[in-house]
This record gives sequence, C-alpha cells and structure tokens, in this order.
Amino acid sequence: MTVDDNYSKLDELFKTSGVKFGDSVIIETQDATHLGILIPRYEYADKNHLVLKLKNGYNIGINVGKIKNIKKITEKLETTINHGTDYKFGGFISGQDPVQDFSNTLSSHLSLLSTGGTISSKIDYRTGGVMAALTAKELNDSIPELERIANIDPEVVLTEYSENIKPEHWSVIATKVADKISSGKYDGVIVSHGTDTMHYTSAALSFALQNLPVPVVLVGAQRSSDRPSSDASLNLIGACTFATKSKFSGVFVAMHYTVSDDIIACHIGTRVRKNHTSRRDAFRSIDVLPFSLVHNGQIEISRQYADLKFQERHNNVENMIVKPKFENKVSLLKFHPGFDCRMIDYCLESGHKAIIIEGTGLGHVSKECFSQIKNAVKRGIFVFMTSQCIWGRTALTVYDTGRDLLNLGVIPLFNTTSETALVKAMWCLANFKEEKDVIKTMTTNIANEFTNRIIVD
Amino acid sequence: MTVDDNYSKLDELFKTSGVKFGDSVIIETQDATHLGILIPRYEYADKNHLVLKLKNGYNIGINVGKIKNIKKITEKLETTINHGTDYKFGGFISGQDPVQDFSNTLSSHLSLLSTGGTISSKIDYRTGGVMAALTAKELNDSIPELERIANIDPEVVLTEYSENIKPEHWSVIATKVADKISSGKYDGVIVSHGTDTMHYTSAALSFALQNLPVPVVLVGAQRSSDRPSSDASLNLIGACTFATKSKFSGVFVAMHYTVSDDIIACHIGTRVRKNHTSRRDAFRSIDVLPFSLVHNGQIEISRQYADLKFQERHNNVENMIVKPKFENKVSLLKFHPGFDCRMIDYCLESGHKAIIIEGTGLGHVSKECFSQIKNAVKRGIFVFMTSQCIWGRTALTVYDTGRDLLNLGVIPLFNTTSETALVKAMWCLANFKEEKDVIKTMTTNIANEFTNRIIVD
Repeated sequence: MTVDDNYSKLDELFKTSGVKFGDSVIIETQDATHLGILIPRYEYADKNHLVLKLKNGYNIGINVGKIKNIKKITEKLETTINHGTDYKFGGFISGQDPVQDFSNTLSSHLSLLSTGGTISSKIDYRTGGVMAALTAKELNDSIPELERIANIDPEVVLTEYSENIKPEHWSVIATKVADKISSGKYDGVIVSHGTDTMHYTSAALSFALQNLPVPVVLVGAQRSSDRPSSDASLNLIGACTFATKSKFSGVFVAMHYTVSDDIIACHIGTRVRKNHTSRRDAFRSIDVLPFSLVHNGQIEISRQYADLKFQERHNNVENMIVKPKFENKVSLLKFHPGFDCRMIDYCLESGHKAIIIEGTGLGHVSKECFSQIKNAVKRGIFVFMTSQCIWGRTALTVYDTGRDLLNLGVIPLFNTTSETALVKAMWCLANFKEEKDVIKTMTTNIANEFTNRIIVD
Repeated sequence: MTVDDNYSKLDELFKTSGVKFGDSVIIETQDATHLGILIPRYEYADKNHLVLKLKNGYNIGINVGKIKNIKKITEKLETTINHGTDYKFGGFISGQDPVQDFSNTLSSHLSLLSTGGTISSKIDYRTGGVMAALTAKELNDSIPELERIANIDPEVVLTEYSENIKPEHWSVIATKVADKISSGKYDGVIVSHGTDTMHYTSAALSFALQNLPVPVVLVGAQRSSDRPSSDASLNLIGACTFATKSKFSGVFVAMHYTVSDDIIACHIGTRVRKNHTSRRDAFRSIDVLPFSLVHNGQIEISRQYADLKFQERHNNVENMIVKPKFENKVSLLKFHPGFDCRMIDYCLESGHKAIIIEGTGLGHVSKECFSQIKNAVKRGIFVFMTSQCIWGRTALTVYDTGRDLLNLGVIPLFNTTSETALVKAMWCLANFKEEKDVIKTMTTNIANEFTNRIIVD
C-alpha cells in the first residue's frame, strides 16, 4: 500500500467515522485496539502513520494501512495523569488549601508564546534528527487536554533553538510577555522554549519583569512533541495548570519532576538549572525545593515559599515593572587549574563591562590571577564571584584567598547561580549607570536569586 | 589566670596524670566530665584550651583553667563510628564478601602524602579565618584511630590551598605517589588535598598513574582539622580503611557520603565533582554510584563495579604506567547566551593547543560561534565538547546544531565531566605527539571517564 493509498484510506476513515483531530477515539487495527486522542500530523511526520495519544500520556504511531476501524467516543479521556501512588509530597502544602487555588479554571485565559526549541520541534524523517518547526498553534492543537484547562491564545515569537537565544532575544520575549499582560486579558503567560538555555531566559524574565500581576511560566521538552515518548504535553499541561491555579505571580519553569509521567515541578525562574543532558527531570531547583508541584490537575506549593520573595496575583497592571534591556558585554569565566589568567585581560581589552568568575569552592581562584583581577577592577570592570560547585554559597571571609579577593574588589554573589549571576549582571549594566547602583542591585535580592535558608532538593 | 599560668597548669596536669597526646582520657572540669582522646595543640591553636576528641567524633576545646583533673584510661575509644541505623546500602555489595576484604589491616602500611588544603589547616585565631599549616605528621598524630588501621608514614609534598594547585603540581604529586608505590613498601597511598580542586587532581592522577598495584585515595576536609565540627578525621579514617581493604586498585576520592558522621563514599577519581561549597557531603559521583562506601570499619563495593574498568591489586610494581606530564595550554570555556565567540580566537592566538567547550544541553553552542570554531580546528587546535548540565552525555547527532558542530570538527566527549575532560586533554597533549593519537586517546576510555550504563546517585 502506497502513501497515497494511505492518504485516501485515512480520508475515507475520517469521513465515515465522523472523527476529527482532537477527538477521543477507539482505533481497531489488525493487531490491537487502541484508545486515545487523535493528534494532528504535520508536514514532516511519517505519512504512513496516524498519531494517537494514549491514556498513559504517550503518543503512538498507528500504521494507516493496518487500521480496520475508527470510532469516536464521547467519554473525555484523562490521558496524562499517572500519579505515583507511593509518592509523598513532603514539604509541600496541599493544593486543596484555598490559599493556592486561585480560580475556576474553566474561565481562565492564557497566552502561549512559542520561541522554538524541542517542545516545538518534530523529527525530520529525512535525517533522523530533530528540527524546529511546530508553531504555538500546532502545539496547542496537538494537546487537546489544554482546552479543558484554559482558553489558550497561541502566538509565535521566535523559532530558535535555545543555544542560539541571545540577550537581545530576552528583550523581545520580555516585551512580548509584558504586552500580553498589559492587555489585561490573560490569567497567565506560558513561554515555550528550548531547554538548553531556558534557565538563562527564566532568570532574564525574572529581572526584566517585576511586580508581575500573573504567573509567567516557561516550559520545554526533552523530546520532540511528535515522539511517542515526548514529555511536551505533560509539561505544557503542568505549566498551564500552575499558571491558572497559582495564587502567586512570578517567573517559573515547569518541567517533569521525576522520570515518570506524573508530577510537574514549577521551579523559581532564578533558582533552576538544566542538570541533565537528556532526562525528563533534567531541571532542578538549586538550594531550594521546587516552588510548586503539579499533579492530577492540582498544585501544591512548597512550604518554603514563606521564606522566599513572592507576591500574590494582582490586577494593577500599571504597577508591573518592565525593564527589558540587557547588556551583552558580560562574560562568565570558569576558573580551573591551569586557567589562563590573561583571559581576564582579554575581557578588559574587549570592552567587557563585567566578569562573573565561576570560582572553586567558596569562590576562589589561584593567587596567580590576583594581578589581572586587581587591574580589571582598577580599570572599572565589575568582577563578581560565584561557585562552580553549583550548590551552596560563596564565602570570601573564611580563607586567606577569599579575603585577598575581597581586598582586590571582587564582589561575591552569595548563592546566586553562575547562570543567574551572568544574566543579572547583563540586566544591571543595561539599567543602571552608576557604579554604586550596579553594586547595590547586584548584591540585593530581587527575584530569589539570594536565598537564606538553603534546602537541597 | 593568664596563658602562661595555663601552660604551667597543663604541664603539671600532664606530669601528675602521666598522660600524653593521643591517650584516651577522662577530663573533669568545674562544669562537666568529658571522655575522649587528647589531640595535640599547634602553634596557632587557642592556648587557653586543650582539644579533646569526643566519642561522637567531634572535637571540643576545654578551658585549661577549668580543668580539675585528667585521668588516663586504657579502654580503646571508638570515637568516630556513628552509623545510621536506618541507612540502607542499596546497590552495594556487602564488605563481608571476601572478594572485597583484601587484607588483615593490622599489618598494612600506608603512605600519607600531604599537599595542603583545609584538611591540613588550622583556624588562625588572629583573623578568625583558616590557614594552611598542619603537616602530614601532625595530621596523622591528631587522629590516633589511624594507628589501629595501618602503620602510616606521613610526608609533606606541598602546602597549597587547592585553588593554587596547577598542572605542574599534579606532576609532582603523581611522581611522588609513583615513588612510594615503587618502593613496594605500601598497601596504598593517601593524598590529603584541598577540596576546591581535589576532583581535578584525582582525574590527573587517574591518567598519570595507570595499572596501579595499590589504591591511591585522595582525601580532604570541608572544615579544618582543629574545628570541633571537622570532617577531617572521619574522611581520613575512611580513606585509610578503603586503601587497606579494597581488593581493587585505582584512584579514588574519599569524603563524607551524607551530612551525618557515619558513612564515607569512595568516588572514582574521574567521575567525581565538588557539588556544594560547604557541606560535608559536597563530593558526588557523576553518572555512577560511588565506587565504595565505608562504614563501621568495613567497605562495600557498588554493584556497578562490574560495568566499570577496574583492576585488582597486584604486586607487579614494574607494570605500573607512570606518565606524569601535563600540558598547560588547554582551556575550558563555558558557553552561555551572549558568549563572546572571539574568546575562541583568543585561545588560538595565545597558543592554546586544545579547548574544552562546556556547551549547553547535549553539547551545543550558538551558530554564531561556528566560524571561530571552524577556524580554530583548521589551525590545528583540538576542540572538544562536554556539557554544562554535568549529568548525562553529549550527543551531537540529535539536532542540527550538533551535526553542524561535528562537521566543523568538534569532538564530543560522551559523558566525561568538563573537569576530567580538561585534565585528560592536558595529559594527552603532553604525552602524545600525533593528532590521531590525541584524538584516539581522548575518545577511548582509560579510567572510567566514559561510562555506558548511567546511574544517577
């Protein structure tokens, strides 16, 4: 049977059964009977297969040639909920608590802004690889469950893999998010994004958009949306659920909490990091618990939230602070044994305005770099210190090396992650002219980039 | 009472009670009675206090002026063993298994090489900070329990905080370790080291010293040895226990497994990372379980060991491979949004021979860097790719970006950590002249820097 034959057959099947994409159906093949939701095919999809989302949340491709019958069912399928029976929500406040449950979600409106990445990618069957292609609308259409959470307006802002996202893109995204919020039409904004640098972008939005009236939730996927094992739909469902139900506004990242398809973690935008190249639960909160977990359509907020800086939703759109500019000339240098200290001179000579040194341990570098650091500070470059340990905080008063670095003018950034520190410095330098304002802002907690009570997840 | 008065009183107390440092004693003060081991005081210690190591492994300072009586006891104190009753050794083979239990430790001999760092540091009471001062002998003397594990010959090799350790130092340490092993006198070598870059040094020794007849165990402390809360003694006891009992040779790092003072983890030298600035359990195995856990004087080996590359102890000292040279001109560049791609040109112009790019996700950088990478490869610099995610592996065949990078000549390093990749490149370039040999060695598993079955601890 040829592809054209399959097309004709599919048309016929759709016509006789009266089904359309998004419908819940039972498909009988020569081999088995499948219950699921019909997912639209896209240009690059394998044309011999119909994609069905099963009850367990996974997609399967069904060979059209083998389909005997398609039958529409009216029963609303709950496809993605497979919550672990033995999972304990330690440290979390139940979503039943009226404090957390913001709204009747049936009347919620969300804006879905697509920027590219795996979540809006499809397998390119010519190369076997993945390419960015899916639009926000296609993404929205391919996950029919979203309809039950909120009315979602999709829009494409960028189509970039996130390794290509630059500070200029953060400005574009921040401005677009602010526009959507300013319209007063939305209860939340979802930003679909490539996972590689999603934590940099979430930090950027955390500084660029303050005093937010509604939640802004970034979401990605570790596997493309048309793959059977894609995590895209559950992540997006989790993001939308949180965005409609959370009592708190702010910038968050919603991704799988474990490798199972059950719980979505919503991390604080400045405190999250991609810690695994491929696992679904690659994103981890650093030094704090995830802000919220979403499962079974409910959200639970971490008990830690009281120690953090969050505000509740509000309607004063005009009070939202929008500062979407970023300065490109900031570098992140990871120190290591054998580090070429002249790299600091290079930054100076290239007109960089700040350097984040990702030091060792509590925030150290070799004494061999002292003269370069001294010179850089003297010439007006800000030198900030973070730690390559990732977890924990810098402390430059414990050892000789740290005290020497303080004397040289190095500014430690406590437990701000290196990635967030870089983004914050880029933001500070674009928004503050005076040295004292930059230093004051860099060492002041704006969006939970500093946390006092440290808990390791 | 003055300090001089205290000195006279202490002399008198020691004389009348017949005690010496290292003895188990009962000390009666005006306030309480303490049972512990007398720890020597050092130059920088507070001269008003006598340091006693308690049964729980912690040190306390006892005000000499308040001491009423010191009494020597003959009972051997077990000060550091406080093993959690509910801890489960999942995934580990019991130390009872004769496979693991190498020797009667009473006749074991270990070499203890001190290189500096917190483990051989004391609080400087003038500044309140910590300074490097303790020698290997003082360290050995301050932990009397070590006597019961093995006869230990201490020697000072370096006195550097580890942020100052350079590739040249790795050569010095590797050569000294090889000398000790070549003497045929030792069942293992312990290297005490600052924690900041201990994982870089452990990787360096893993490549410089192959086919090792005995284990080489690096050990450090997150808090200085004379602090009440120091983790130094338990780490050192764990390192020595493993070094005497392990059936397998190789290079390891021994540090606290949890924040409790009970279990020591022995990590594979190439697969370990300092993941917290201050916690005792800062060191974590990446993509594998710790090779061994030590508790209650016994060692347990991870079930994973069969999937890894290890050899058993042997007596053929002449078969040991010693290649202690390292090339300094290798850089580690962490890619980030807004990354200045001309940093790659800088490395080229500065005569660097290899660059490790710590890319995003599966091993990506912005397409804006492609021309610099292409030029660097063309001009003969090796460009290797690792991931800043830390866990997981690079994969350059999944996305367009990865395939483009492969075409440019970028060499992915699978799941070698960035730190180990840097060290390995430094080692390869010092030991192999031909390009093909460098590439072959960099992409061949030598010391478990590549692991196939990935388990997240």
